[in-house]
Amino acid sequence: MGDVETKAKNARQAFLQLCVVPAKRRNAVLGRMAKNLTAKKQEIMAANAKDIAESKKSGLSEQLVKRLVLSDEKFGEIISGVNAVKGQDDLVGKTISTTLLDKGLLLEQISTPIGVICAIFEARPDALVQIASLSIKSGNAAILKGGSEARKTNAVLAQIIRKSLAEEGLFEDAVQLIESREDVAKIISLSEYIDLIIPRGSSAFVKFIQQNSTIPVLGHSDGICHEYVDEHADTKKAVRICVDAKTQYPAVCNAMETLLVHEKIAPKFLPEFAKALNGKVELRCDPNSAKILSEKGFATKNASEKDWGTEYNDLILSIKTVSGLEEAITHINTYGSKHTDGIITENEKNAREFLLQVDSAGVYHNASTRFADGYRYGKGAEVGISTGKIHARGPSGMEALLTYKYILRGNGHIVADYTGKGAKKFLHKKL
Amino acid sequence: MGDVETKAKNARQAFLQLCVVPAKRRNAVLGRMAKNLTAKKQEIMAANAKDIAESKKSGLSEQLVKRLVLSDEKFGEIISGVNAVKGQDDLVGKTISTTLLDKGLLLEQISTPIGVICAIFEARPDALVQIASLSIKSGNAAILKGGSEARKTNAVLAQIIRKSLAEEGLFEDAVQLIESREDVAKIISLSEYIDLIIPRGSSAFVKFIQQNSTIPVLGHSDGICHEYVDEHADTKKAVRICVDAKTQYPAVCNAMETLLVHEKIAPKFLPEFAKALNGKVELRCDPNSAKILSEKGFATKNASEKDWGTEYNDLILSIKTVSGLEEAITHINTYGSKHTDGIITENEKNAREFLLQVDSAGVYHNASTRFADGYRYGKGAEVGISTGKIHARGPSGMEALLTYKYILRGNGHIVADYTGKGAKKFLHKKL
Repeated sequence: MGDVETKAKNARQAFLQLCVVPAKRRNAVLGRMAKNLTAKKQEIMAANAKDIAESKKSGLSEQLVKRLVLSDEKFGEIISGVNAVKGQDDLVGKTISTTLLDKGLLLEQISTPIGVICAIFEARPDALVQIASLSIKSGNAAILKGGSEARKTNAVLAQIIRKSLAEEGLFEDAVQLIESREDVAKIISLSEYIDLIIPRGSSAFVKFIQQNSTIPVLGHSDGICHEYVDEHADTKKAVRICVDAKTQYPAVCNAMETLLVHEKIAPKFLPEFAKALNGKVELRCDPNSAKILSEKGFATKNASEKDWGTEYNDLILSIKTVSGLEEAITHINTYGSKHTDGIITENEKNAREFLLQVDSAGVYHNASTRFADGYRYGKGAEVGISTGKIHARGPSGMEALLTYKYILRGNGHIVADYTGKGAKKFLHKKL
Repeated sequence: MGDVETKAKNARQAFLQLCVVPAKRRNAVLGRMAKNLTAKKQEIMAANAKDIAESKKSGLSEQLVKRLVLSDEKFGEIISGVNAVKGQDDLVGKTISTTLLDKGLLLEQISTPIGVICAIFEARPDALVQIASLSIKSGNAAILKGGSEARKTNAVLAQIIRKSLAEEGLFEDAVQLIESREDVAKIISLSEYIDLIIPRGSSAFVKFIQQNSTIPVLGHSDGICHEYVDEHADTKKAVRICVDAKTQYPAVCNAMETLLVHEKIAPKFLPEFAKALNGKVELRCDPNSAKILSEKGFATKNASEKDWGTEYNDLILSIKTVSGLEEAITHINTYGSKHTDGIITENEKNAREFLLQVDSAGVYHNASTRFADGYRYGKGAEVGISTGKIHARGPSGMEALLTYKYILRGNGHIVADYTGKGAKKFLHKKL
């Protein structure tokens, strides 16, 4: 396997082979993967048991240990995940546009894999298999860095995936592991070989990658999501949605962090909402909402300016009353992270304005921000969620691993014929 | 106008206004621009004359002064360019995909402007008007840095464009100028406000931006383009194409820098090609091509390893003989810059393999690399040429200034209903 630069070089070689392999063979690799993983289940489970034992010994948090565990159920999901990716439509080599530039000079825009993807993720061995599957399916090579807690499990999984490539007569280096932080530091400098980095982890980690690499990054740093309860909201609906957005899974990026409430509906809505939360959520309030809630006997804390820009990932919520739609939109466009933001209202005009004017990857009307997810969007599998605006935005599936190239076919065509006096004219006919 | 950070903040405000303005009003701004620029032609020309005089006095190269000059003809082209952009289809707010996630829960993917674009270009005042037009048309705000040689011309042009925005009742800060290098250094740090940087300039400059900003960059650093003359090439066609690719405009990124020739056709092709060049081009040859050419009395120099990775932008060409298609493809994928590379052959199978396997934005069969250009591709106007693989690849038009957002409309839908026991199932019906 060699050092990191050798790995990156080999990954590029493997990509250059894989990118021209027909879909049938890429699918055959996935078929072999499902078969080989199933056959080696005991070995995988044994490695996972060792990882779990070591992690517990080293005092890893219960939550992280839980994400590490490969139960029978999760193992089954991994296998059906591979088969699901295998069953997806092939997106490589599709014609995106065709233009006849002139007689005999045809320009085609064709979808292609991107190249070498570097994905960095935390202690979830299932993520390794998912990303490798998507990468192989789409003709890309992948260099993967999993959590060190899952080292033994990941090593076995990667070995089986590489074997599946080799059995199909392809370079096994289309899927490779790196392990240390030093390897990560090195690989993000190799812009010659790596085309896209997909970091999944803390906001600080994603920012570190962005600041220390010239390679494009697909990811999200912060997830500061809002729900705005409009003057014309149905309060029952609003309570239901806001409880879900805050409490259904507070540790994730698409959970609500700030609640904005129209001042006219606040006296009615806020106590109902606080009652539904049943004391489980710490409420950091602006003076107006604090007053409303404390008068009804609910505990509140004071929000500071810093709270509007904080991703808690916890059972904490900042609350602000606003004078109307415009203030809500401005607040979100100022303090939000362009992830996912919703309006709750029965007024179609207000909804439309909100959806148009909020500058986020996802803008929702009467729905919980928690829907922002590749699986829920129907993408089959998720590569990551992007809060950037370039290339891929929001929950991104296999399409985020594709780019395009232009193919021009002529018959001795030269530019000199199309310049100066007596220049030939282009047809530019879209076909 | 204030300092750079204020400008960036104001640009974001202007974007948030412009992005929701209907196409009719964005087009009205362009109409006013064409009218106002025409009305102020004398003032623009006077400013341009001052820029030219100062540039000559300061010893600017003749080539750069030439690019600075606004002739009557160029002025006419600027105006018709604005009108052409005005006449283009509106690409904002188009539905890209629609998925019914479940009954009453509809997900739409809609094209949107990106936000605030920062474009940095050299001494060509026409570029300022072109980029401003494309930016306004697509609902983006633009911060522009032109060459300092064109400072006076650019100032007048920007003022007229800003006035056109204001006359239409829009924030004039949707188009702003910055002037100094210090301003550039500052603005590329403002990732909170700037969504995309488009640097047009030297390869070193583009690399500087990439290394010093976390903001995505659309551009090309090197343009090391190849033509490969296959064993089965028509030599007459090959001579014609290679002369065009090298000499038609050698200073640009899509000119050929390295010629690869199959060893079997080299003895026939190379002398014909050298004859056609008529001594105008310095030939840096590998031993085999040097031998063939010098035996026929043509002057050659020896190519070093460094030559294969050099963009001359001049009447210099490196030449290498190769043993076949595979060596040619490997050479290009190793030393090329993923810009534009062509094969010249009458053999369809070889052409197909080349087009598939060369990992470049443009792959050509029997055509000059000089066709790699937004205008020639029929894009109307060019934002830039990208050698990156993310977001936009190759010559990029207005589509490179667009992204998308997801709009989800529900009726109180929450994620809790779709999880755990008795979970509702998603429909995921593509509409």
